Amino acid sequence: MSPAKGDQTRQTILEEALQLATVVGLEGLTIGSLATRLGLSKSGLFAHFGSKEALQQAIIDTGVQHFMATVIRPALALPTGLASLRALFEGWTRWSGEEMAGGCLFVTAAVEFDDRPGPVRDQLVDLHHQWLSFIGGAAKHARAEGDFRGDLDEAQFAHDFHSILLGFNAARRLAGDPDAKPKASRAFERLLRDAGTAGP
Amino acid sequence: MSPAKGDQTRQTILEEALQLATVVGLEGLTIGSLATRLGLSKSGLFAHFGSKEALQQAIIDTGVQHFMATVIRPALALPTGLASLRALFEGWTRWSGEEMAGGCLFVTAAVEFDDRPGPVRDQLVDLHHQWLSFIGGAAKHARAEGDFRGDLDEAQFAHDFHSILLGFNAARRLAGDPDAKPKASRAFERLLRDAGTAGP
Repeated sequence: MSPAKGDQTRQTILEEALQLATVVGLEGLTIGSLATRLGLSKSGLFAHFGSKEALQQAIIDTGVQHFMATVIRPALALPTGLASLRALFEGWTRWSGEEMAGGCLFVTAAVEFDDRPGPVRDQLVDLHHQWLSFIGGAAKHARAEGDFRGDLDEAQFAHDFHSILLGFNAARRLAGDPDAKPKASRAFERLLRDAGTAGP
Repeated sequence: MSPAKGDQTRQTILEEALQLATVVGLEGLTIGSLATRLGLSKSGLFAHFGSKEALQQAIIDTGVQHFMATVIRPALALPTGLASLRALFEGWTRWSGEEMAGGCLFVTAAVEFDDRPGPVRDQLVDLHHQWLSFIGGAAKHARAEGDFRGDLDEAQFAHDFHSILLGFNAARRLAGDPDAKPKASRAFERLLRDAGTAGP
């Protein structure tokens, strides 16, 4: 197999594994079930990753690529902090609600790995902090631009933003609530209003 | 084994299984690992439940008993809707943050089973609806008592309340954020303020 062909196969495997992991979890995903789905041999699939942990980390990296494309980059392209925050919200609900077969990979993985120390947990904690920092950074821009009040606590804002997304994910995925998105949108608009220069 | 002795053994197994399930998940929990922890034989343990799915449902029932004692009953004992809501918030953070070894059982199970149709998922969806209805009911009392504004959307309030709890759980369990509780408390006070008669 040429290196280019190997890379392509690896990417195909990871795209399938990513979708499967959002449904059955990173721990629930077995090399055997993935091989069956892809029509590959278990040993062939194993040769690409070497261990279940390495596969899990590669799936998370693939998730990050999607997340960058769907959530982060569109927000970065916008001119103001407030516009970026709205784009982050819309991007995240699209990522979790539509793009991933079983909802946000990181939400599923966080619950699986929060009590399992090791490199996968470390990677998830790091991504969690990066995500909150990114939200906080956009909020800081919005403050500097006069859209948010001067005494806004950005860490609190980022925490509240993330809580709204988790509420959306739970309402949509578990409860199948058809109003998950409008409810999350109303909560988000309330958060923006409370952060606004008019004050709470 | 007498029926009383059998019941007691079953309860001991379920208490241990409940704590273990909050750490490794309901799917991650195997009858083998549970037997090892309890010093029982796999076949003996299996005899108590008959199937992994029956064990999972019994663990959820045990979780519900704890949840009733820690979260629901203290709130029911209070005289006003607003006091009940504060007790629900405090009780839930105690339940998830301290009482369960690995955080809220239902949050973990929801992520595991949101894409797995069957009786366990049905049980979890039912509990989710009951929980949101209970919050909404307390909010309705607070409205009738004049503590919340007359046009408050109780379903939205319950959704937002639940989102705050999910944010707490994620911050505490994955990120190990020492400020998880104060952040959730500030979000909760903001929710109460926005629902208040003074309006948002």
